[in-house]
Amino acid sequence: MHIRTIIRIVGILVALFSVTMLAPALVAYLYRDGAGLDFFSAFIICLILGLSLWFPNRTHNKELRAKEGFLIVVLFWTVLGSVGAIPFMLSAEPGMTMAEAFFESFSGLTTTGATVISGLDELPKAILFYRQMLQWLGGMGIIVLAVAILPILGIGGMQLFRAEIPGPVKDNKVAPRIAETAKTLWYIYLVLTIACALLLWLAGMNLFDAICHSFSTVAIGGFSTYDASIGHFNSSMINLIIVVFLMIAGVNFTLHFAAFANRGMRLSVYRMDPEVKAFIGVQLVLTLICMSVLMAHRVYADPWQALDQSLFQAVSISTTAGFSTTGFAEWPLFLPVLLMFASCIGGCAGSTGGGIKVVRIMLLNLQGIRELKRLIHPRAVYRIKLGNKALADRVVEAVWGFFAAYALVFVICMLALLATGMDELTAFTAVVATLNNLGPGLGEVAANFGATTDAAKWIMILAMLFGRLEIFTLLVLFTPAFWRS
Amino acid sequence: MHIRTIIRIVGILVALFSVTMLAPALVAYLYRDGAGLDFFSAFIICLILGLSLWFPNRTHNKELRAKEGFLIVVLFWTVLGSVGAIPFMLSAEPGMTMAEAFFESFSGLTTTGATVISGLDELPKAILFYRQMLQWLGGMGIIVLAVAILPILGIGGMQLFRAEIPGPVKDNKVAPRIAETAKTLWYIYLVLTIACALLLWLAGMNLFDAICHSFSTVAIGGFSTYDASIGHFNSSMINLIIVVFLMIAGVNFTLHFAAFANRGMRLSVYRMDPEVKAFIGVQLVLTLICMSVLMAHRVYADPWQALDQSLFQAVSISTTAGFSTTGFAEWPLFLPVLLMFASCIGGCAGSTGGGIKVVRIMLLNLQGIRELKRLIHPRAVYRIKLGNKALADRVVEAVWGFFAAYALVFVICMLALLATGMDELTAFTAVVATLNNLGPGLGEVAANFGATTDAAKWIMILAMLFGRLEIFTLLVLFTPAFWRS
Ligand SMILES: [K+]
Ligand SMILES: [K+]
Repeated sequence: MHIRTIIRIVGILVALFSVTMLAPALVAYLYRDGAGLDFFSAFIICLILGLSLWFPNRTHNKELRAKEGFLIVVLFWTVLGSVGAIPFMLSAEPGMTMAEAFFESFSGLTTTGATVISGLDELPKAILFYRQMLQWLGGMGIIVLAVAILPILGIGGMQLFRAEIPGPVKDNKVAPRIAETAKTLWYIYLVLTIACALLLWLAGMNLFDAICHSFSTVAIGGFSTYDASIGHFNSSMINLIIVVFLMIAGVNFTLHFAAFANRGMRLSVYRMDPEVKAFIGVQLVLTLICMSVLMAHRVYADPWQALDQSLFQAVSISTTAGFSTTGFAEWPLFLPVLLMFASCIGGCAGSTGGGIKVVRIMLLNLQGIRELKRLIHPRAVYRIKLGNKALADRVVEAVWGFFAAYALVFVICMLALLATGMDELTAFTAVVATLNNLGPGLGEVAANFGATTDAAKWIMILAMLFGRLEIFTLLVLFTPAFWRS
Repeated sequence: MHIRTIIRIVGILVALFSVTMLAPALVAYLYRDGAGLDFFSAFIICLILGLSLWFPNRTHNKELRAKEGFLIVVLFWTVLGSVGAIPFMLSAEPGMTMAEAFFESFSGLTTTGATVISGLDELPKAILFYRQMLQWLGGMGIIVLAVAILPILGIGGMQLFRAEIPGPVKDNKVAPRIAETAKTLWYIYLVLTIACALLLWLAGMNLFDAICHSFSTVAIGGFSTYDASIGHFNSSMINLIIVVFLMIAGVNFTLHFAAFANRGMRLSVYRMDPEVKAFIGVQLVLTLICMSVLMAHRVYADPWQALDQSLFQAVSISTTAGFSTTGFAEWPLFLPVLLMFASCIGGCAGSTGGGIKVVRIMLLNLQGIRELKRLIHPRAVYRIKLGNKALADRVVEAVWGFFAAYALVFVICMLALLATGMDELTAFTAVVATLNNLGPGLGEVAANFGATTDAAKWIMILAMLFGRLEIFTLLVLFTPAFWRS
């Protein structure tokens, strides 16, 4: 284990991250909201921390193996999550405890979007901007993680996508290849963010809100600058723009890469992808179910309003964004729980969405159908195919393993939350909300997570990390075999 | 599909089943409780029904294929479950609707043990006896299903046990082999029942209660003749006897067969079985956790009482018996939910217990560990072994498929119950209680299921069937491929 090389990389990461704190400091300056000094102090602290990790190890530059990749990835999220809590602890408003500050920071960076804050509308703009920025930066990390790193590490069947991105680097060095891929992906991500911000601004948001919400939309994060979330704007146009961009951000970024590479525009790439088809299908079915139930229960008088709300909530929850308009927690309980279960499916692999991922659910489904067929014709041989690509048994097994590990972590987190004294509905939905990086739950955590105990907050932070690191990346660090030799 | 042969077999089954109704009729005569005529009428109705199914098809006696086995098994449980509801509908006490009568009958026969009745203590003895007898008969069916039929059908990896029972029939005919196996198993089952009844009687139960509770103990059914269940007797000795017999009934009956075949007694058979070890381990860990939490919360003053209650509830819930002593629903919520999750593990394969079965959980666990090892050493080859037996990939895949199908049925049943207007805790635990053939839930269904709607009752009946038929046996009938050709 090249520990010093790893520390060097983490040091660089923290130093780079410190620079981003200057953005909210600038916002504080522009709005004269008084939070500027806090962010400048946070910048200095992080910079010193980063440099002091880097400096003693600056000459250590060993080629890292896949095994060390797990440690780097886990450190990336835990260290930045912890460092990201500093401004929340420094700032007088909203006045957070350590557990609250860590919760908010990890929730931002993992794009979970669960918040402990109520009274967002009165907070300094710099704090609001910082929360949204954390999600946006988290989203940048996730794309690279999901498109370039998890396939190399072979997490939960993602080796399926190992060779998909046609990067310009031809040799076998992993690091430069990841760096090249990252640049391209971030370019796409940036273009999407700008387009989303522009449209939101044209649809009536002020520029600050437009930028802030485009950050949390393309990251499928779900933080807002208002307690009422997107409901604050009360605009079907804004709802629709967010729905469209959530759908775009919920698709595998490898496809965006392929569709817009070389200044072309090949939309057939999307049409031919079985995961995209299933992803869109899920959203349509959920919208229809929501609309039917809402109409049957006469929750909305106007069918267009019912459609607007159904589409928005279905897409927002099932892609794991977690924005809300109306108090969807007050819909007939069947619907919120249905959408919560749908958030376990989540976005496509290689997107900023959370959950188990559409492609894995498709593989589970195909394998289930194969088992049924085998019962009827025990001697026949059936291959699992996705589109027209036959899958290696190893990929299928890895997906099974992922699902079982996901279920196990789910049950353990839920029991741990119950042990802190939480009620059942709250504990169940809190795990759904954090493990899937969704955001809001039901019960006590429908509006925000402020009322939960500190112990519960630390458990939920762990659940967010498990979700974002696709269970196995974190789980593998708990095995003795990982640390041997 | 040899439909007429199948109808002939079902006819014989119903006619045989009708004879069992004479037992509660006899009880009614002995206790002069006035329910005798109802059971005699039920006997006549069932007999006529059975004979009229059998008579027109009496000459049809084709050799059945495995595929037709699925249909026979499903018909066995649905037809007997329906016919078993007749006495409940005929009897003036407790005065049941059709949905209630079906619920009680299916709950008995599938050994679920969820009841819609409150006020058991005042019911005619014949009705009480009948409920217990339904569970006992259900247990007889389950052993044969689990030991002899599911392995042949290859449900959820149970082909693992295909050749284990060293039956005396050497040729390949399936039916005589199953018949021989069944006789041996029922002999063991009968001996266990008599032993359990004797001990309960010696421990202070009256003879009627001793027989009734031995029925529901060896069947891991959980019905009682009192609203307070085993708590009525308030005796640690009775608790302990029931715990011991639940553990025996929760072990694969193939092992009992092997241990006591040829008038010998080879206890090493149990010691060498990895599933038995894991099964006992689960009970011990759960008992310890319950005891620690109960002591920490000072629920019981006396440590011996805490141990007594912990052991009894841990074994009763996690083996899916569902007996209760104290209102375990009033324990700190963590414990009931923990035990509910443990009931998803359930008994060993080939036992009368419900749930996913210990051996399947072990295979999921081994496969999960293999995935973690593969992440660290991607090029190594790992075989999945149970004890010292390497497992075919096909078996492992079948277990994965089972787990995914179980999760899917769980989610669908829970959403369906929520759609009937049930609250979340009730719906969640009602599915755990019925799909695992456990019995009691929490929330509204902690004491009994009487307050649920008719729609909810039918959904839960389906869940009991799915659980008892190990998901796939029933699911396969919903595929078009099954009905083709
Ligand atoms: K989110
Ligand atoms: K039971």
